[in-house]
Amino acid sequence: MPVVLTNIKRADPEATAQLGKYGVATVHEAMGRVGLMHQRLKPIYKGPVISGTAVTCTLPPGDNWMIHVAIEQCQPGDILVAAPIAEAHSGYFGDLLGTLCKARGLRGLIIDAGCRDIDDLAEIGFPVWSRSVCAHGTVKETLGDVNLPVSCGDTLVNPGDVIVADSDGVVVVPRRKAAEVAAAAQAREEKEARIRVRYQQKELGLDMNNMRPTLEQKGLTYMDQADFEGE
Amino acid sequence: MPVVLTNIKRADPEATAQLGKYGVATVHEAMGRVGLMHQRLKPIYKGPVISGTAVTCTLPPGDNWMIHVAIEQCQPGDILVAAPIAEAHSGYFGDLLGTLCKARGLRGLIIDAGCRDIDDLAEIGFPVWSRSVCAHGTVKETLGDVNLPVSCGDTLVNPGDVIVADSDGVVVVPRRKAAEVAAAAQAREEKEARIRVRYQQKELGLDMNNMRPTLEQKGLTYMDQADFEGE
Amino acid sequence: MPVVLTNIKRADPEATAQLGKYGVATVHEAMGRVGLMHQRLKPIYKGPVISGTAVTCTLPPGDNWMIHVAIEQCQPGDILVAAPIAEAHSGYFGDLLGTLCKARGLRGLIIDAGCRDIDDLAEIGFPVWSRSVCAHGTVKETLGDVNLPVSCGDTLVNPGDVIVADSDGVVVVPRRKAAEVAAAAQAREEKEARIRVRYQQKELGLDMNNMRPTLEQKGLTYMDQADFEGE
Amino acid sequence: MPVVLTNIKRADPEATAQLGKYGVATVHEAMGRVGLMHQRLKPIYKGPVISGTAVTCTLPPGDNWMIHVAIEQCQPGDILVAAPIAEAHSGYFGDLLGTLCKARGLRGLIIDAGCRDIDDLAEIGFPVWSRSVCAHGTVKETLGDVNLPVSCGDTLVNPGDVIVADSDGVVVVPRRKAAEVAAAAQAREEKEARIRVRYQQKELGLDMNNMRPTLEQKGLTYMDQADFEGE
Amino acid sequence: MPVVLTNIKRADPEATAQLGKYGVATVHEAMGRVGLMHQRLKPIYKGPVISGTAVTCTLPPGDNWMIHVAIEQCQPGDILVAAPIAEAHSGYFGDLLGTLCKARGLRGLIIDAGCRDIDDLAEIGFPVWSRSVCAHGTVKETLGDVNLPVSCGDTLVNPGDVIVADSDGVVVVPRRKAAEVAAAAQAREEKEARIRVRYQQKELGLDMNNMRPTLEQKGLTYMDQADFEGE
Amino acid sequence: MPVVLTNIKRADPEATAQLGKYGVATVHEAMGRVGLMHQRLKPIYKGPVISGTAVTCTLPPGDNWMIHVAIEQCQPGDILVAAPIAEAHSGYFGDLLGTLCKARGLRGLIIDAGCRDIDDLAEIGFPVWSRSVCAHGTVKETLGDVNLPVSCGDTLVNPGDVIVADSDGVVVVPRRKAAEVAAAAQAREEKEARIRVRYQQKELGLDMNNMRPTLEQKGLTYMDQADFEGE
Repeated sequence: MPVVLTNIKRADPEATAQLGKYGVATVHEAMGRVGLMHQRLKPIYKGPVISGTAVTCTLPPGDNWMIHVAIEQCQPGDILVAAPIAEAHSGYFGDLLGTLCKARGLRGLIIDAGCRDIDDLAEIGFPVWSRSVCAHGTVKETLGDVNLPVSCGDTLVNPGDVIVADSDGVVVVPRRKAAEVAAAAQAREEKEARIRVRYQQKELGLDMNNMRPTLEQKGLTYMDQADFEGE
Repeated sequence: MPVVLTNIKRADPEATAQLGKYGVATVHEAMGRVGLMHQRLKPIYKGPVISGTAVTCTLPPGDNWMIHVAIEQCQPGDILVAAPIAEAHSGYFGDLLGTLCKARGLRGLIIDAGCRDIDDLAEIGFPVWSRSVCAHGTVKETLGDVNLPVSCGDTLVNPGDVIVADSDGVVVVPRRKAAEVAAAAQAREEKEARIRVRYQQKELGLDMNNMRPTLEQKGLTYMDQADFEGE
Repeated sequence: MPVVLTNIKRADPEATAQLGKYGVATVHEAMGRVGLMHQRLKPIYKGPVISGTAVTCTLPPGDNWMIHVAIEQCQPGDILVAAPIAEAHSGYFGDLLGTLCKARGLRGLIIDAGCRDIDDLAEIGFPVWSRSVCAHGTVKETLGDVNLPVSCGDTLVNPGDVIVADSDGVVVVPRRKAAEVAAAAQAREEKEARIRVRYQQKELGLDMNNMRPTLEQKGLTYMDQADFEGE
Repeated sequence: MPVVLTNIKRADPEATAQLGKYGVATVHEAMGRVGLMHQRLKPIYKGPVISGTAVTCTLPPGDNWMIHVAIEQCQPGDILVAAPIAEAHSGYFGDLLGTLCKARGLRGLIIDAGCRDIDDLAEIGFPVWSRSVCAHGTVKETLGDVNLPVSCGDTLVNPGDVIVADSDGVVVVPRRKAAEVAAAAQAREEKEARIRVRYQQKELGLDMNNMRPTLEQKGLTYMDQADFEGE
Repeated sequence: MPVVLTNIKRADPEATAQLGKYGVATVHEAMGRVGLMHQRLKPIYKGPVISGTAVTCTLPPGDNWMIHVAIEQCQPGDILVAAPIAEAHSGYFGDLLGTLCKARGLRGLIIDAGCRDIDDLAEIGFPVWSRSVCAHGTVKETLGDVNLPVSCGDTLVNPGDVIVADSDGVVVVPRRKAAEVAAAAQAREEKEARIRVRYQQKELGLDMNNMRPTLEQKGLTYMDQADFEGE
Repeated sequence: MPVVLTNIKRADPEATAQLGKYGVATVHEAMGRVGLMHQRLKPIYKGPVISGTAVTCTLPPGDNWMIHVAIEQCQPGDILVAAPIAEAHSGYFGDLLGTLCKARGLRGLIIDAGCRDIDDLAEIGFPVWSRSVCAHGTVKETLGDVNLPVSCGDTLVNPGDVIVADSDGVVVVPRRKAAEVAAAAQAREEKEARIRVRYQQKELGLDMNNMRPTLEQKGLTYMDQADFEGE
């Protein structure tokens, strides 16, 4: 029986906001390299970096009715995560729904299906990460669920989880781990800043990380090209 | 026997021009959601929105000869629709042919295969929707047809049909329906403008379209997350 | 046994630089239409056109260790060509390694796998042609080879070969043929300039290349659409 | 407005039957290498070779209603050609409809979308060429057309055309050309039989077709490997 | 922190066994068309139909260590569900592990990645549904989780859920709904048997389901082809 | 300039024959997990396991002329490796060429493009590993190379290398390493036989390989599901 869960628990807003500063690659690393959606989800226009709390819905084939239902469950600061139950490329979302979402304070949409009106969405500034761009519209006939756990972009999303999305993709941080991951991401950023300076000074990773003994021990052989070909 | 049809009938120029103003998603909706090419056809550079009348040709594998033949059949305001007879990704079209097409007044090219010199084409302002970007060139050995019906982007195109293309994709309007579809698109635009205002005022689609009774009747259940998990 | 070849022979720097001026499509044509990588390799940001000499490495699945090893073998003016030994989409390269590569004078990276931090890489101006954009990181556990011949983008690359990359793709010019191909590309550019002028004056390819007799001899038939349909 | 055309003209039954004997590759060659559907259409089980006359229908996304409508228009000896109007993978057809089609004398189904119950269909012996195998079902809400020209597998099909399908794929022979193509296929088969005998006797294609002078003239050079490497 | 959950709750064995009799398409329908994995998961050999209770694990890129860990958690009658955390095609599973799994009473493996030794696995009779067939091996370096909820084939799987797999694909029945879905599937089978008999007697779906009035009301028009073309 | 190298050096015939006994997965492991072609290359019919020495050729787009040229360079026991220079799906090879190849003693064909007449090829028993099955024919207009190194299935192949192919895919063993790899494969087979027996006796990989301490040290935690959920 299709169900809409209301009054969902959401990740801590401060941690959610903080995670948005680090970007997807850093957050993903800080979490131990889990939670990344498939690379087929791409931003429909260049530029946006967002973070927010997930409201989830499922999408029956060619049917975007549940997006309407889910929007009502969204608060300012949420990100809608729409997961089709079968491979889908049609345009489930366009500039009209984008206008509504923006008006209601949503930060963006993650949809493992198609999106349309992408120029209009860029103009009004409502960011979407989608699998396809396709003008083909959808109907409103079949129910799905809102705020149950979903599989989106080959990744599990629970309602209230933190979503971070940028030009590198989309990552999901479990609700209860938001603060912990934010702290780890902060530490990682600081470490990367130090590495960056040393790389700018041309220091090799081989030396900075003392990799040469391990490479040798694993059997890596250096040989002059001329000697190799003369063999 | 390969054939070139001359003196083709073309859709009404006024309706053709008018359709270009509405964009692909709106035109596609106004036609009853048919005629959209597959989403694999994408613009090679951002920005252009075009409409025009189709001149069609088929492309033997790795062979762009018929593009030369088809260009002669084009009038100012036409759009060339090039359909390979087997899956193709090579670069059948580049900046030299783009220069010629632009000089002769073509509005653009729709090609379900590869295109090259995409930066040059952007610079001279000749828009192309293609399946691939690929520098691999083609030969001129085998004949095809010009101005017969073709299957391009999984969609039927008759010569003289209206083509509308923008960042959302490519749609085909049958020649004789151009005026009727333009009128329907105009009506749809007006309706969408009214919806947009209400969405900007945060009115939900659920309320605007009176969806709640139907959702309830189909069995959608609202439940507090805490209650659901306590079950 | 994994091996790193040092002191590799590189293509002539002058010819290498010259090839970068012509772009991928022209160089590919000038070589007789060989050496083009698969169209799945695309620039992570718009704009760059590069040429340089190849330093090659292989990538075990999910492992970017050999990129560190290969960077040490690079000289200013080189382009790193990284070839996974199994289909790969993870992010083997990001802005930290991009910072190091840029500092050491590399011209760019060609990687038949994933790249991440693409906005940062665009900002620091280190161009990458990759198969995917993906934030998923890699480990440093397994060895590969540096400066052996590799298969990258379905194309053979020998160390020291010239790589040319732009928005149309990536082409490989064998080390010893660099000067010869550069000359052929120059000749082709001049010829194309002459064609461009004639195309701007609306002369058809059919006439410029005297194609009409061959078309007729191969059996191409011109027929008025009205006559054809009346058949 | 959705339409069902009744009393369609069909290709000559004798020519249709004859074409089935030659198989897809031979018929496609005999037609001058046009009319082949995309290789994504594959038989759901090994073995069948069929020919028949096309009854066509379009499929709205996730909706198989028009298959029911189209079956009524089929006569014994027909093949149903079902063309979705947007990329589709759901299971539009299963063993129940297969039972009905077989009972009514259809020879098979060509569907550029998904099929299910493939083991049952193999057991009852109703052959299908489909794009996907997928258990996901469809609804019956939206109309399409029956017996208008469709684009299926990137190829134009008119109602009444001959369809030939085997393990190599699916080919479409225009209704009026059936007899002519059958004769050409027969001639081709005879020629191939003669070639086969010479190939069994190890005669090279180079000699049988006197290719050596052309190869030499185009510049093919034979060189001992030892000499080449000593260069 | 990677975790292995032990003593998981499993679906009722009787309902699990019963579901295996109906096959994937029927179970999926009986559940209301949810829970079907993506059609990219296919059996590595023809024939098997299985049902069992899910033990889940995640797979880091190129690493099959957690399969070893998960096997220990399996009981006779379980099906292992292995979900990579990034797109993966390598061969994570082969005949040695198949030998172990079979010896320990597992019913099969569902893996959204590659499998190898497929002929040996067919011979020993251990069925696998995989995304790819690929001989490329994996390492044992990185941890994942066992028996947490996973996203496999774009579908959510909880440990203890029922898995049904056959030639049409793979479907997941939530643990607590097993009996209810089995009953619905039984009812559906009986209904389908009645329909099958009527279809064998050539009764059209149009008549059996009284579709004609609805088709007419939605505007479907029947027209003789000759009249249509004469328009 | 297109070239055909004659009198190529071939791998030792005994080692070549021996490698065929071990199959692709074992040989690939024995080589240190390199040399495997992409999983897109699949056998056109079930059953064959072959090994032989490579004769290589390149294929211009839609052109199979060089296959004729390459066949003359083949000896009994060779395997033809045909590498297109751009993505290709047409049918470059069919039953006539298969008849010739079989008559001349070739063991099989590896082609990173399309093949046709697959039922006939199965019947005469000439095995092919191809990327696609497609009836679309090719022309004989453009030259390529024979017996130069090629990139096939994303893998480097030198003429005279050993090719091993079975239902798991295709692997390339460098000519000079054939005996060494055969010995390593033999050792691996013996080791696998011992493992198989222990697996048949239900011994876990965790115990056989003493993995428990490492798992614990890396932080894997075992927890009762009830405790985990009660957290």
